[in-house]
Amino acid sequence: MVVCGGCWKSTGVDSRKRLSAVVTKYSLRYVCEILLVKLDNLFGGETSTMQHPFQGWPPPLETRVSRLFGIRYPIIQGGMVWTAGWKLAVAVSRAGGLGLIGAGSMQPDLLREHIRQARGATDAPIGVNVPLTRGDAEELIQTTVNEGIKIVFTSSGHPGRFTGQLKKAGCIVAHLIAAVKHARKAAEAGCDLLVAEGFEAGGHNGLDEITTLTLVPQVADAVPLPLLAAGGIADGRGMAAALALGAAGVQIGTRFAATLESSAHERYKKLLVDAGDGDTVLTLKRIAPVRMVKTPFALRAEKAERAGAEREELLALLGQKRERMGIFEGNLEEGMFEAGQSSGLVRDILPAAEVVRNMMEEYYEAKRTLP
Amino acid sequence: MVVCGGCWKSTGVDSRKRLSAVVTKYSLRYVCEILLVKLDNLFGGETSTMQHPFQGWPPPLETRVSRLFGIRYPIIQGGMVWTAGWKLAVAVSRAGGLGLIGAGSMQPDLLREHIRQARGATDAPIGVNVPLTRGDAEELIQTTVNEGIKIVFTSSGHPGRFTGQLKKAGCIVAHLIAAVKHARKAAEAGCDLLVAEGFEAGGHNGLDEITTLTLVPQVADAVPLPLLAAGGIADGRGMAAALALGAAGVQIGTRFAATLESSAHERYKKLLVDAGDGDTVLTLKRIAPVRMVKTPFALRAEKAERAGAEREELLALLGQKRERMGIFEGNLEEGMFEAGQSSGLVRDILPAAEVVRNMMEEYYEAKRTLP
Repeated sequence: MVVCGGCWKSTGVDSRKRLSAVVTKYSLRYVCEILLVKLDNLFGGETSTMQHPFQGWPPPLETRVSRLFGIRYPIIQGGMVWTAGWKLAVAVSRAGGLGLIGAGSMQPDLLREHIRQARGATDAPIGVNVPLTRGDAEELIQTTVNEGIKIVFTSSGHPGRFTGQLKKAGCIVAHLIAAVKHARKAAEAGCDLLVAEGFEAGGHNGLDEITTLTLVPQVADAVPLPLLAAGGIADGRGMAAALALGAAGVQIGTRFAATLESSAHERYKKLLVDAGDGDTVLTLKRIAPVRMVKTPFALRAEKAERAGAEREELLALLGQKRERMGIFEGNLEEGMFEAGQSSGLVRDILPAAEVVRNMMEEYYEAKRTLP
Repeated sequence: MVVCGGCWKSTGVDSRKRLSAVVTKYSLRYVCEILLVKLDNLFGGETSTMQHPFQGWPPPLETRVSRLFGIRYPIIQGGMVWTAGWKLAVAVSRAGGLGLIGAGSMQPDLLREHIRQARGATDAPIGVNVPLTRGDAEELIQTTVNEGIKIVFTSSGHPGRFTGQLKKAGCIVAHLIAAVKHARKAAEAGCDLLVAEGFEAGGHNGLDEITTLTLVPQVADAVPLPLLAAGGIADGRGMAAALALGAAGVQIGTRFAATLESSAHERYKKLLVDAGDGDTVLTLKRIAPVRMVKTPFALRAEKAERAGAEREELLALLGQKRERMGIFEGNLEEGMFEAGQSSGLVRDILPAAEVVRNMMEEYYEAKRTLP
């Protein structure tokens, strides 16, 4: 199987328009970054083993998380469905963060291809995110291990299910939690670190609606593991807030979905850029809560739920492949566009490396100006 | 009208039990603080004009908010119903923060008494919080102005309604908002500062469910006024997070509700101490969203709403005086116990001054250890 350019779809549509918009808006530095991405596109990973020289970049930030993964900055890119292919993961890892390939929307064969492309493109650490609710989770985990991946993020399932097996294979295992009780369970299962994800996060969400601001310090108090904060963070101010609360790093989804290397549809990226503070909603609570942009499908789901629709009715309304239709195909009427409340803070589509760099510059600035 | 000890009820119940628990848990410093509060109780404000010497306390924190109010620390105590009488407000203001008398559960006559008691007890600045949805909001505002109060916080109504009148009377006017569009409206109305309150906050809440972590930086970017962050903050880590996000101070409700000076019922305070991370719920959304502890009434409301109950049905279920029954009378079965998600971080009942002092110590520690 050949994975075209690391995405699930052909690229290059609207590239010139995008490029000229960015050139107008930003300085030469951004243009050079974009040219690098374009070169990578042309040569399909041939040039990608180049490391960022980090000249003029913010200094490394040492925390328990950056030490654990051996990375320059404790910024972990979320493994979002239909968005986080090898190209995004590589771009983030090469910029000093940690990129994750999102297995949630991949069959095992496709996952294998993405891992191989990523491994060929960089020597920097790369991880894989596996949602444990997938019927073929075991096969995805097996593929990940067989392909030599040493960093695995698991989510939305029992942390004890694969942690032993993964640890035996020499992996660092992170598990995503949305409540203190689940944090304790993940620690007991032997996970190496936790991702505490709040109510403001995009996609699947916890039942108790606990926000990042209140969840992170409570998890930090309850469990001594290194901690990533997730949900609601899209810039360096949010990162500084997370670290002040007791996290040792951040996991970022929505902001990285709106990058050049994200494999999501342009219409999805534009939705993120256009979204204001109140333009997402947590709905489908009676199936499993999902945060998404308030597009027509989201409003239909919300209306049904408010009218007291039962689980079966909502499942029928949800149907099949809504995530793909939205995020990957850009179907504004029928698609589901998962995104976090931090979309209100996303104002442009940038190379992923610029997101990392800006976030670190903003982080150091927030730290410097803290009264 | 005589206001007994600054509360709506007699105090002293369980004082010894409380005292001994605190002595066991904390050092001599705490005991002295409690004795001071007890002395104030005995002498009914006679000793209250004593200022805290602030010896051994954290240094002042200068921000746009502390400069605006002329206070030592930019910590504002929320004017919560049935909780924030003159005694709590005075305790916070004497500790270097800013105390607010909560007019939301007072008739104008009672408000006047509370203001007079507060004015007699301290020379430090004191404010009043007026919810503009009250039918007699105009009378409450008039009473506040007539009694010489120079700091007014308004909430849940149109900011333009009284701002001109208050400014003419020489008041500093703050308005509470829960979305960027309302922040812009409050700025246009001439308010001096804003309180950005997130989804995690206790009591009445915004319709768009925007969390503090995402709301604060967006409001900071949109409106140049000094900004307080509210919702989800109960310690110095949360305060550091808020200031990193662009706030110049914090407004704290739940943590101050669980203090010795809070006029709330002991059973309410105990609920706050016992609450874990997921023990509050935002419900009554079809009337006006309110966050409360998951007591039997909250669960009944939640169940009705999930079943698709209409506004009229919910209004009937809500009935009258639920807040008083819960917060003030401690009726666990029938009462409504408004509280924020930060109740998960509240682990003890302390003198309000200790809350301020701890928060500032934790703030400086969070700042110092930020990587």
